[in-house]
Amino acid sequence: MLGSTHGTLTTDSRRARVIACGEQPGPAVHGRPAEVDDLDVSGRPLYSDVPDLDRLFRPRSVAVIGASDAEGRPNTGVTRQLLAWSERVGARLHPVHPTRPSVFGIPCSPSVADLPEQVDLAVLLVADPLPVIEELAEAKVRFAVVFASGFAETGAEGAIAQARLAAAVNRSGMRMLGPNTNLNAFEHFRDDLAGPAIALITQSGHQGRPVFALQELGIRLSHWAPTGNEADLETSDFLSYFAEQPEVGAIACYVEGLKDGRSFLLAADRAARRGVPVVAVKVGRTETGARTAASHTGKLTGADAVVDAAMRQYGVIRVDGLDELQDTAALLARARPPRADGVVVYSISGGTGAHVADLATEAGLSLPELSQARQAELHQWIPEYLNVANPVDNGGHPVGDWRGRKIIDAILADPEVGVLICPITGPFPPLSDRLVQDLVDAAERTDKLVCVVWGSPVGTEPAYREVLLGSSRVATFRTVANCLTAVRAHLDHHRFVTRYRSPLDSAPRTPSPSFRKARELMRPGQQLSEHAAKQLLRAYGIRVPREQLVTSAAAAVRAAGLVGYPVVMKASGARIAHKTELGLVKIGLTSASQVRDAYRELTDIARYEDVSLDGVLVCQMVERGVEMVVGVTHDELFGPTVTVGLGGVLVEVLRDVAVRVPPFGEEQARDMCAELRGRALLDGVRGRPPADLDALVEVVLRVQRMALELGDHVAELDINPLMVLPRGQGAVALDALVVCT
Amino acid sequence: MLGSTHGTLTTDSRRARVIACGEQPGPAVHGRPAEVDDLDVSGRPLYSDVPDLDRLFRPRSVAVIGASDAEGRPNTGVTRQLLAWSERVGARLHPVHPTRPSVFGIPCSPSVADLPEQVDLAVLLVADPLPVIEELAEAKVRFAVVFASGFAETGAEGAIAQARLAAAVNRSGMRMLGPNTNLNAFEHFRDDLAGPAIALITQSGHQGRPVFALQELGIRLSHWAPTGNEADLETSDFLSYFAEQPEVGAIACYVEGLKDGRSFLLAADRAARRGVPVVAVKVGRTETGARTAASHTGKLTGADAVVDAAMRQYGVIRVDGLDELQDTAALLARARPPRADGVVVYSISGGTGAHVADLATEAGLSLPELSQARQAELHQWIPEYLNVANPVDNGGHPVGDWRGRKIIDAILADPEVGVLICPITGPFPPLSDRLVQDLVDAAERTDKLVCVVWGSPVGTEPAYREVLLGSSRVATFRTVANCLTAVRAHLDHHRFVTRYRSPLDSAPRTPSPSFRKARELMRPGQQLSEHAAKQLLRAYGIRVPREQLVTSAAAAVRAAGLVGYPVVMKASGARIAHKTELGLVKIGLTSASQVRDAYRELTDIARYEDVSLDGVLVCQMVERGVEMVVGVTHDELFGPTVTVGLGGVLVEVLRDVAVRVPPFGEEQARDMCAELRGRALLDGVRGRPPADLDALVEVVLRVQRMALELGDHVAELDINPLMVLPRGQGAVALDALVVCT
Repeated sequence: MLGSTHGTLTTDSRRARVIACGEQPGPAVHGRPAEVDDLDVSGRPLYSDVPDLDRLFRPRSVAVIGASDAEGRPNTGVTRQLLAWSERVGARLHPVHPTRPSVFGIPCSPSVADLPEQVDLAVLLVADPLPVIEELAEAKVRFAVVFASGFAETGAEGAIAQARLAAAVNRSGMRMLGPNTNLNAFEHFRDDLAGPAIALITQSGHQGRPVFALQELGIRLSHWAPTGNEADLETSDFLSYFAEQPEVGAIACYVEGLKDGRSFLLAADRAARRGVPVVAVKVGRTETGARTAASHTGKLTGADAVVDAAMRQYGVIRVDGLDELQDTAALLARARPPRADGVVVYSISGGTGAHVADLATEAGLSLPELSQARQAELHQWIPEYLNVANPVDNGGHPVGDWRGRKIIDAILADPEVGVLICPITGPFPPLSDRLVQDLVDAAERTDKLVCVVWGSPVGTEPAYREVLLGSSRVATFRTVANCLTAVRAHLDHHRFVTRYRSPLDSAPRTPSPSFRKARELMRPGQQLSEHAAKQLLRAYGIRVPREQLVTSAAAAVRAAGLVGYPVVMKASGARIAHKTELGLVKIGLTSASQVRDAYRELTDIARYEDVSLDGVLVCQMVERGVEMVVGVTHDELFGPTVTVGLGGVLVEVLRDVAVRVPPFGEEQARDMCAELRGRALLDGVRGRPPADLDALVEVVLRVQRMALELGDHVAELDINPLMVLPRGQGAVALDALVVCT
Repeated sequence: MLGSTHGTLTTDSRRARVIACGEQPGPAVHGRPAEVDDLDVSGRPLYSDVPDLDRLFRPRSVAVIGASDAEGRPNTGVTRQLLAWSERVGARLHPVHPTRPSVFGIPCSPSVADLPEQVDLAVLLVADPLPVIEELAEAKVRFAVVFASGFAETGAEGAIAQARLAAAVNRSGMRMLGPNTNLNAFEHFRDDLAGPAIALITQSGHQGRPVFALQELGIRLSHWAPTGNEADLETSDFLSYFAEQPEVGAIACYVEGLKDGRSFLLAADRAARRGVPVVAVKVGRTETGARTAASHTGKLTGADAVVDAAMRQYGVIRVDGLDELQDTAALLARARPPRADGVVVYSISGGTGAHVADLATEAGLSLPELSQARQAELHQWIPEYLNVANPVDNGGHPVGDWRGRKIIDAILADPEVGVLICPITGPFPPLSDRLVQDLVDAAERTDKLVCVVWGSPVGTEPAYREVLLGSSRVATFRTVANCLTAVRAHLDHHRFVTRYRSPLDSAPRTPSPSFRKARELMRPGQQLSEHAAKQLLRAYGIRVPREQLVTSAAAAVRAAGLVGYPVVMKASGARIAHKTELGLVKIGLTSASQVRDAYRELTDIARYEDVSLDGVLVCQMVERGVEMVVGVTHDELFGPTVTVGLGGVLVEVLRDVAVRVPPFGEEQARDMCAELRGRALLDGVRGRPPADLDALVEVVLRVQRMALELGDHVAELDINPLMVLPRGQGAVALDALVVCT
């Protein structure tokens, strides 16, 4: 029996127990960093290389295929921009055009073959890029950028053309950005801004515009990858590459769909290992969004809950609005690691303090009450009748003189305080100008985070435009909500990074002994009978009730004696669904005569309902636990995923389920249970004992192992219900549905 | 039996049935508009007068008590501002000061008694206002504004001083704004802006600053009431008054706490009847917020869920951030009633369209697919391969010429379209400047709503500052989220107003016949026994199981015969809680011997647990329904409220309950059930029949009647569980807890 003798174990001893209990090993804990070509047991890669994109972003020479300087041609504007950019980054530009002798005074090559040197980057402004790609391959060009649209985003025919383009690129060894992309990678990045930068990845050029515009507010941008249709280079490639660049402080993404879930996870893992925050807008919260996004760049959006879980597993911070993307990425790029989690709200109005403290608490931030000593210190400068416990209300006046700075310094000196948030609801220059200057000065001298919310809707005030935006140390926001979202993300990110152990390092690489047994039980294309499905679970060390499959009333009575009264009897067959609704389950049978009657009734119903049986199951009756469901679902982007939910009405009516993408470790399995809305049921309510959470977590991990090893053989796998017994007594799978592929 | 023979009834016949079934009348439907002094059956007012505040906002003469022109005195700045304001509004200003001969060249009166005329308004800049208030009363001043702080916001002593001040004001017939208020009512309201205005009510002056600053973006403001501690005039007074002013298009409120829930409802009802939208930030989502707000202006925040419900009942739009307050109030003040609910997202980028359509759908807006004919029309100007179904993606180019305006006009001409949202993610002047001008021009010629989201974080672009903000017909936002919140509020508000029937008109004014019976059952200060509690329910026409209270095993057996097997037996006594946990309930008893055993066991346990019994209940066993809870809870602001929730784990673990403040009608009772997260249980899941929703709604309304009639006599009232049987079979209260005050 699983978990029968263990009360309070540490994680390590729990893991040891799983192996020691002799049924099956839990998920293998290799702890070996993956290398090139390493695969997990499902055949999925555990490693991806970082593409070397240096010469895409900093080429020494650029060819512009279809360059133009003729007035009114769209290509002329593009050529002009590329010329300006090449000059800025010191690249030689070579226009290519079959008939023009020169473009903007630079001699034209009539074809790619005639280029004066081997170029790093070719920008294709032509409508049909395929023939050019083949010429570029000949010429050993390293990177191509393809502007042309009309590919996968237009439907099936376009998808074929795109596949041809991708194949040509793959054969060549060249890397391609596009098709359906644009010039954003070659915009004007300000080089007068210092400090860590944001790197930007967007599948739609237009959607990156606001983040790019942050440069006008003094926030540094280092790169922009407008990935378009991603026939070759995709979001994940840029994610990996940017995570390795020393100047990148945070990566901001706008994602409509992913080419492949796994490469996204591998890239996000790389960023997580390096502690580089990734902030992403991902379209697809609703059916409308998913459909429209698919028709925009021809990619899959995936089930939103799965995308959400995958992102959280690898620490990707998901936000909804481009304004949140800007504000969160800007903060995470520039803020130093937090010194403490405590947040203080500091304002010149008690109303503002109360309001922002309310919203901050609602946003999950911790507002510690300042110590009596600290409060006494603050009351040297702030009248006694004002609240300085946190929020700190200074009443206004102290801000106008030397006391203002003292107050800020005293708050920042508190060891519990990591973040000071000062909402300036309305500018009142005699007070707020000095307050702003004091905050900017104080921020220069502290390693703690100073945030200001400039609440005026006007935004042309000098204190905002010049003083606040002029500071690289103060994080300035326009709304309280975005400030709180960003601060929460900042604190969460550092907590995440500190605790992060890549699940890829401990992903199982070879099949467990269970796998051979399991393979024999599979029936391709069929639904397994309940009995066979339970044998499959047993093979993976998941406990099932004592039960026997019988084919006569007499055998049923004998089986009941062996199993032990009271018993449950169920019709068993390969194709039975909705057993309970059909009356094919009898519970609480306490005598031989009840068993005999039940046998007759079940076989009668089966005949009447035209259900083919392989027999009747006589099972041990298991009561007094919490009913859960644990299963495997296939996601179009991420493959097999593991779900856990509370059984009965909670899962049926409220869809109260948690999902994770394998591989994941014990901590994530625990988090799954913790994020269920009805989790209190597992802690014990109405005087019931707490459930055996350790046993539930073990089942989830064993089901993950099944998902990894059997993923391609199993179309559907659901344990429903899994009865989780009181703590120390394990968990039992009372029924299971397995459909083989 | 309630509802036993009725399948599909209209609302009216259902109401008739309640009365016809002879148990008790349902909630009285008077339908008579309330008048002065009208009270409901609980003694709460059904009517409040609109205070005449014309001379507060537009006085003919103003006295400034404590006026100053001495350099460096805080009162000097205030006096200067009042002087400027008086000049603007044409009021005569009279400084009052015991020693100064004149202030800013105006002769001073040494005391209130020496004022040269009877003044409309006195502004008190003195630290101790009480003696002055008494002088002002003598002088028949109509309004006083008291700046001094140090009252209820500082604790018990301050509250006493505030009560004294309030008493003096009440005696005088004067009305007072404050204490702990400021000059915001006398700011500079721009008179060059036309159209409907926002009127602003804030309990903290500072928190109103951003809404006030909207004037700098071209949005008109008519009034600002900074209510401070509300010793006399309160938020509700201004709400009523502003709702009656013809120039007010919307009322924006910042509320920390309320003096009295009922007056707020009466004022909100007045606004709802007149169709004036009220948008409110209400602090108190969290414990931190509630505590801090209370210490700021010394008011009660109330239970947040109750405040939330009360606001929704009367159509008050609650938002969280001051930025949402600005954007929502500005839209609602200026937008005309919607012509249709359909929203079209129109953009120059497929990515933007997909993203905003996703967020709009998530926000609950309806994005109808445009008709084939409309799409064909749009494709005259937009390339075929772009999606124009909604979102409409124009691909950029058509915006740069005459086609841009054609597209906008075609979208606005669609009868299904009420709102056009155009997110301009990044400014690209060759396209976006023309697009903005086309939108502004089109908005001038349509009665539909045109919204633009200016996504650039910079905000100094001329297309934004001059063209968009220069238009009073285009609603301009800085974030997609705020645009969607405001549009949703706009559509919801008009739906609400169209359907609004004031619940106050049909509130019961006289006790029902049930009340006399009920009063006899009350036991002051005691918890009623289960049996007595059920008699109380019966008095109000709520069905309870057949049951008998017995005091011997033999009587139990006789009772079981009368009630009908199977039976449930329960210990009954005045002070028993947690019967099930103590083993004091026996269910499913099917024979006389089981009944005899159960009687013995129950009385044994009661002896052992030292529980005093008045007997044992032998009850009809009722199964196969949906378990609900219906009860009455007391709120510090609103008095008795009615709650309904799903029973069992849903209410215990998820707190899945809905609450309403009486009086409310049948529609609200239905909404309560509809807003439960587990409502699908009532529709029937797992092949169960749908539950008798009509019977549940009737019980909720009868419990409301109990709340109104017994509110002051009952400390606690809970039906748990109420078993709601399959449709047409009614609902039965299986247990009830009633604690008398």
